[in-house]
Amino acid sequence: MIKFRVIFNVLGKLLIGEAVFMFLALLLALFYNETDVNAFLWAALVTFTVGATSFFVSRKIDLSDLGKREGYIIVGLVWVVFSLFGCLPYIFSGSIPSFTNAFFETMSGFTTTGSSILNNIEELPHAILFWRSLTQWMGGMGIIVMFLAILPTFGIGGRELFVAEVPGPTPDKLTPRIKETARHLWGLYILFTLIETILLYLGGMTFFDAVNHSFTTMATGGYSTKQASIGYFTSPYIQYVIILFMFIAGTNFTLSYAAITGKIGKAFKDEEFKVYTFIVLLFTVIISIGLIFSGTATEQAFRDSLFTVVSIITTTGYATADYLLWGPFLGMLVFVLFFVGGSAGSTGGGVKVVRILLLFKNSFNELKRLVHPNAVIPTRYNKHVVEQRTMTNIMAFFIFYVIIFILSSVLMSLWSDDILAAFSAVGTTLGNIGPGFGEVGPMENFSKLPDLAKWFLSFLMVLGRLELFTILVLFSPAFWKH
Amino acid sequence: MIKFRVIFNVLGKLLIGEAVFMFLALLLALFYNETDVNAFLWAALVTFTVGATSFFVSRKIDLSDLGKREGYIIVGLVWVVFSLFGCLPYIFSGSIPSFTNAFFETMSGFTTTGSSILNNIEELPHAILFWRSLTQWMGGMGIIVMFLAILPTFGIGGRELFVAEVPGPTPDKLTPRIKETARHLWGLYILFTLIETILLYLGGMTFFDAVNHSFTTMATGGYSTKQASIGYFTSPYIQYVIILFMFIAGTNFTLSYAAITGKIGKAFKDEEFKVYTFIVLLFTVIISIGLIFSGTATEQAFRDSLFTVVSIITTTGYATADYLLWGPFLGMLVFVLFFVGGSAGSTGGGVKVVRILLLFKNSFNELKRLVHPNAVIPTRYNKHVVEQRTMTNIMAFFIFYVIIFILSSVLMSLWSDDILAAFSAVGTTLGNIGPGFGEVGPMENFSKLPDLAKWFLSFLMVLGRLELFTILVLFSPAFWKH
Repeated sequence: MIKFRVIFNVLGKLLIGEAVFMFLALLLALFYNETDVNAFLWAALVTFTVGATSFFVSRKIDLSDLGKREGYIIVGLVWVVFSLFGCLPYIFSGSIPSFTNAFFETMSGFTTTGSSILNNIEELPHAILFWRSLTQWMGGMGIIVMFLAILPTFGIGGRELFVAEVPGPTPDKLTPRIKETARHLWGLYILFTLIETILLYLGGMTFFDAVNHSFTTMATGGYSTKQASIGYFTSPYIQYVIILFMFIAGTNFTLSYAAITGKIGKAFKDEEFKVYTFIVLLFTVIISIGLIFSGTATEQAFRDSLFTVVSIITTTGYATADYLLWGPFLGMLVFVLFFVGGSAGSTGGGVKVVRILLLFKNSFNELKRLVHPNAVIPTRYNKHVVEQRTMTNIMAFFIFYVIIFILSSVLMSLWSDDILAAFSAVGTTLGNIGPGFGEVGPMENFSKLPDLAKWFLSFLMVLGRLELFTILVLFSPAFWKH
Repeated sequence: MIKFRVIFNVLGKLLIGEAVFMFLALLLALFYNETDVNAFLWAALVTFTVGATSFFVSRKIDLSDLGKREGYIIVGLVWVVFSLFGCLPYIFSGSIPSFTNAFFETMSGFTTTGSSILNNIEELPHAILFWRSLTQWMGGMGIIVMFLAILPTFGIGGRELFVAEVPGPTPDKLTPRIKETARHLWGLYILFTLIETILLYLGGMTFFDAVNHSFTTMATGGYSTKQASIGYFTSPYIQYVIILFMFIAGTNFTLSYAAITGKIGKAFKDEEFKVYTFIVLLFTVIISIGLIFSGTATEQAFRDSLFTVVSIITTTGYATADYLLWGPFLGMLVFVLFFVGGSAGSTGGGVKVVRILLLFKNSFNELKRLVHPNAVIPTRYNKHVVEQRTMTNIMAFFIFYVIIFILSSVLMSLWSDDILAAFSAVGTTLGNIGPGFGEVGPMENFSKLPDLAKWFLSFLMVLGRLELFTILVLFSPAFWKH
């Protein structure tokens, strides 16, 4: 029996939390005294009322009812529920009148994807833009805490490998561990956001823009307050600051925590971090050379390349240059990065560097196994043997990713101008990146797609954000059989 | 220590065999009395001389020297060596003056890919066209015998799963088993070729065209004696006959053998065959509906769909219709079929239906394993449990396929007009299909590509034909350490 009471209880509490954030945006709306004050007031009230009611009717719960299956359902629902209420400010204020568009924009926010249907960003009220960035910031924080603190305690997800280094006490008691770990990670997330805000402000951004961009950088979300994205800010200093913080946001937060608490050597010994850095450098060098050959000035070529590579691999999705104009080879390199993604335990989406790394290692070991069929040749990560079960899980994840990518692209091609646009729309939403190729390129947006396509892509965003299994398991008959 | 003597011996014998086939083509050249008589004479002489010399210098061998590693090397080399000599008739006759083009065309033949650099097919002498078809027919026969009879006896390839039904005695002695199995399979292959030839001849093809197309159908090769491929033969009867035999050629030959020897029920109980049939029907229905909606007459729409679906899934690559004109959705469906491929134990290339099937099954089982982490949930195939080792091998194969596909596409995009053309050129050669998308579409050919690209694609053909591992293992350092 699934205990729905406990699900209502938790979701109710979380909705109250969302209402508090809406209230923050309301204060900003009051400060700027723009047209959206009432929108935030009503959105916050509705959200609070529903959340409080849900919490109240289910207040008598037994915490031990919160089992693995309830955990899966809560995680699967929370992004949807948050988006359903989170889109109210857009609708009430008239900023995004269509429910489909408003839901898409909100889901794209909470999943830190950054795909947008807006083409009048600079005309929108400040509080609406702030709320838009805030959805990403909340989503980014949520995903780290979920994957590094909450899911492991439920034994969900097969991520034992990536959470070995989580700061905090051993998982003997549920609540203290979650709280302790979450506090460390939130602290770090907030600290990085603060530092980036200050650095961007010092570089000449307005305080408002600096806060918004810090929110969406640290979440690897990619929403900007400017229609031209970071391309609007021509200052190299600003662009390099954003590159640095995108890179940090795409790094495992437990590594950053280790580095900051004095164990900097640990970070540089981490295999995933080394490969992540290597990929960034390799792609940057190749693309830079390509751009220099086609006539771009050296520093500009380097900066555009580095920015694009870091923006795509971390799945942020900010744009400074239009990679659609770079020709097939450099375009292909960008497209390949769609399928790498950030590090495990970062706010980045996608397949994740560690999975790619282990898939490569295991494949090469498979060759060795063919030559020596009787030898036991384990795959190692950070000097530890990766259990067969974990390896199988990673392979199954990748295969699911490919299957879902292909089948979704078939469906998406019903609504696309061409095959590549279909592939890229699926790749960018499933990987939580933001921009794609063709009609959904970095200088375009998703507004022209039909409603059905937007709902489908919204589903892919949450599917990718929760790393497939967490959602897919809800569709498995075995899950619902008691 | 690798015993090179035995390698020379086997390759020598095989080259003598190739010379015999060249001699057959020489007879045809004499019969038609065209310009290519001397070309075949010299090609056969050179090939025979090299083969006989290699055989002679290594005649004193100990058969027990023919171990697993020697087996790998022979298999890895034979397609290359055969192509090096097989391209001589093209060069000597001046039909394909460039060595690169001639090698590409020959490798495309022996690997039963069917990608061509020719754009004057109908101007070529009969014997040259016959040789071109013959390379595919030999390649098709070679691949069946190799995968179903030879490799299993060496314990190469992890294909235990697919060869359980091989006709012939149990593998207690090497030579009798190979010979027995090979004889059964060759007999069947020749029988099907004969029947198709007769049926095509009865349908109004010239005897020459009937033989050539039967050769390239049964090999799932796709070379035609007409520049317009099967589109030249507008007779629905001819097209349906070819569809039927492509479908048979894409079926596991051990199943066809069972069906023909009275165990027809066995074939219809085979899971791979059921899924293979289902995919063909499903795609045909969807594409038919799409074509009817866009105004094609019903029978024509059905026939074009069925032909294209069977041609692509079996990796034959014949064309009757230009799928590039079908719009993004139907084009996407065709592109997806690039990654399915024929059945194991058929002449078809690609990933193979059984692998796709098992990957799907295992992925869904992985969801069950997440719900019940302590349960042992094996993946089954034809009611037998698939060993974990086999499943891991299949997963590793698929992941290698994806990795190689992506990295090769990056390289290929250096020489392509656009990203999709690069993807499709790699997909079609790695999957041994033939035509691609864009500049290498079904009504185009590979002649415009630079030489380096042709060499690279030739490598992909043999890599795909030998199902990756057999070639990749040769590049693994572990293989060369004794």
